[in-house]
Amino acid sequence: MARRFVQPDGQKSFTSPNAWDGHKVLSPLAVALPRLPPIAGVRLGAAAAGIRYQGRVDLVMAELAPGTTVAGVFTQNRCPGAPVDWCRAALSGGQARALVVNAGNANVFTGAAGRAATAATAGQAAALIGCAAHEVFLASTGVIGEMLPYHRITAALPALHAKLAADAWSDAAHGIMTTDTFAKGATRTASLGGVPVRISGFAKGSGMIAPDMATMLCFVFTDALLPAASLQTMLRAGVQGSFNRTTVDSDTSTSDTVLLFATGLAGNPPDADPADFATALNSLLLDLALQVVRDGEGARKFIRIDVTGAVDDASAGRVALAVANSPLVKTAIAGEDANWGRIVMAVGKAGEPADRDLLSVAVGGIWMARRGGVVPGYDEAPVVAHMQGSDIRIEIDLGLGVGSGIAWTCDLTHGYIDINGSYRS
Amino acid sequence: MARRFVQPDGQKSFTSPNAWDGHKVLSPLAVALPRLPPIAGVRLGAAAAGIRYQGRVDLVMAELAPGTTVAGVFTQNRCPGAPVDWCRAALSGGQARALVVNAGNANVFTGAAGRAATAATAGQAAALIGCAAHEVFLASTGVIGEMLPYHRITAALPALHAKLAADAWSDAAHGIMTTDTFAKGATRTASLGGVPVRISGFAKGSGMIAPDMATMLCFVFTDALLPAASLQTMLRAGVQGSFNRTTVDSDTSTSDTVLLFATGLAGNPPDADPADFATALNSLLLDLALQVVRDGEGARKFIRIDVTGAVDDASAGRVALAVANSPLVKTAIAGEDANWGRIVMAVGKAGEPADRDLLSVAVGGIWMARRGGVVPGYDEAPVVAHMQGSDIRIEIDLGLGVGSGIAWTCDLTHGYIDINGSYRS
Repeated sequence: MARRFVQPDGQKSFTSPNAWDGHKVLSPLAVALPRLPPIAGVRLGAAAAGIRYQGRVDLVMAELAPGTTVAGVFTQNRCPGAPVDWCRAALSGGQARALVVNAGNANVFTGAAGRAATAATAGQAAALIGCAAHEVFLASTGVIGEMLPYHRITAALPALHAKLAADAWSDAAHGIMTTDTFAKGATRTASLGGVPVRISGFAKGSGMIAPDMATMLCFVFTDALLPAASLQTMLRAGVQGSFNRTTVDSDTSTSDTVLLFATGLAGNPPDADPADFATALNSLLLDLALQVVRDGEGARKFIRIDVTGAVDDASAGRVALAVANSPLVKTAIAGEDANWGRIVMAVGKAGEPADRDLLSVAVGGIWMARRGGVVPGYDEAPVVAHMQGSDIRIEIDLGLGVGSGIAWTCDLTHGYIDINGSYRS
Repeated sequence: MARRFVQPDGQKSFTSPNAWDGHKVLSPLAVALPRLPPIAGVRLGAAAAGIRYQGRVDLVMAELAPGTTVAGVFTQNRCPGAPVDWCRAALSGGQARALVVNAGNANVFTGAAGRAATAATAGQAAALIGCAAHEVFLASTGVIGEMLPYHRITAALPALHAKLAADAWSDAAHGIMTTDTFAKGATRTASLGGVPVRISGFAKGSGMIAPDMATMLCFVFTDALLPAASLQTMLRAGVQGSFNRTTVDSDTSTSDTVLLFATGLAGNPPDADPADFATALNSLLLDLALQVVRDGEGARKFIRIDVTGAVDDASAGRVALAVANSPLVKTAIAGEDANWGRIVMAVGKAGEPADRDLLSVAVGGIWMARRGGVVPGYDEAPVVAHMQGSDIRIEIDLGLGVGSGIAWTCDLTHGYIDINGSYRS
């Protein structure tokens, strides 16, 4: 099973010193990193700071033009990392001049020392740029409960800052990876008051945690001129329809962070209708979220679950996520078994309004069960063929109302156990 | 990995025609079935009715003395099987004369035909015994969404009824098994108003569902004289402290059923204080619940999680179950990795009051993290040794209040994937 690890975008393969990396195989669901063109007011770069491993790129910095506005959405975990606390506080200012991200150490469960590390890192970046510390945003990913050796970050930042460039998007997208098997990025254009603007972003994530508390991070940049409050509203809605509709293993990380920076250099009128921008942002966030699912630990199948007929949309969404989080549904799909009995079980365990005798289930577009019972003599051949593919589609009609919702997930395979529970015996 | 399947109680090994049974291996956490002595007013038996497979024991019956009272607790799944509906309705009478259980078909998602099957089965048993149909209790376990061939049950019941015996407890305990790797039983004595009474029970379960919707069933019998209302109160409390504190894979079955029958033939005074009985019942239910965990699909480690310092007991219980249900905690334990970072993550994702900086975590009795940070230089050797054992103990102190709670689970291994996602490719 140990294959050479090669990026789908043709980049040089790299060797990670993680213990299980000998088994690290490019996800069969991987997609290529698109070219992310420059965005006015954004310069980026990556460096190897030796935070956990020597010679591994583990530090990413972005400098943002003066006047950049910012929005953020963070983990709901009650034990968040120090960088999450830092960003939440900094967000009240609504202004950003820099982003500093490190891999190798999550700075979680590190107490006062963890808070000191965030202050020192932000202070160093602010000094290099000439801004206030609360205009510097931070994220960390990697091992939990160990002190972040932030002096290695502050030692590496001056040289990194000196080489920031407008076209280093691929470096940055690769630099935040931990257990990811491919770099994840997306870019869109939109029109704001007749002026074209660009939105680009990159993300990491491969299961909520693996193997040492790697987490989901996502950073989005635009040259649009938009006030922080408007950005925040659009980002929250966009995350609700993307990252909040996906799951790999139901475990919520302590470091989930989505940040959106707007440099304002596109020249759009400040009072433009943001509808087209919001549409493009939603599309970009969903693209990135689904790339994370496609890199789910051990994933071999990409699964979409559509629920209709619920009492309302929120209820439909919860039913879809209950199915997406069911280990028995996910293992059945791994085994290419269209086991709609397990789907019925998962619908029932969601705790949402459901009537067994009104429930219908389709797999691959074929309705196998209708209104509480199996469809006699349904055509099994296309269902079997569908289950052998890599993109699986489940539809559930609750038959109660007009609420609808979607969830995306991946299957649960031996690869997940390999990655997260390497046997010592 | 395919080992010969032998019961720990020395019974003859049996061959099940389930597709994955070639890989079925006795759980390394198995315990022997104790001898379950006769209980006045209870006669049992088991037979092969050919419900799904030929020659496999798949039908269990118990006849209960006139005057037997009954209590029941059922699945919270919103899509329960027809037998669950039947029992819920029958329970209102408070009286029981018979129990009929089949394996091989769960009679779930079978609509009107499923309801007809329960009525026919109960009617046949009632005719054999000479009681009302609503004094017959039913449970079914096995494949979902297929019509229960109840005519095979009604055809087999007369011969089975004719051979019921007071000492056939082992036959009954084995007869309800599906994917279980060992039969599960327990017995206790208690004093009711100075009169000794006996409680015995048997259960099945090995994960909520595997591979075709097998489920948790538990049947308990006593010769005590107790009114149905009192039984119901004690059973509900006992299940709360036992089955409701255990999880294998977080999937809630459509058929979970716990029934308690009291024949009233022990001769105890009707107004006796039931405290000692309740204590014995709680002990028996916990014994059976933990046997189900020990037969969890693919389980190699038995895990107990103690949460203290919560704002109240209910909150502590929810935190304990969040840790018990975390795939990342369970895979870490499978890998013998005392990964307390994942434990912190799982505490935080529970959504209960928790303060990262007050949190302490112990594994195997060694406190690795105290009040929000790793304990520098804690003695790792006993932790490593503990993780290599089969009984794992996690303690979590939230540091907020005096609420406490417990959960039990098993690890998540390749065995779980093998059982639930047999790869066709």
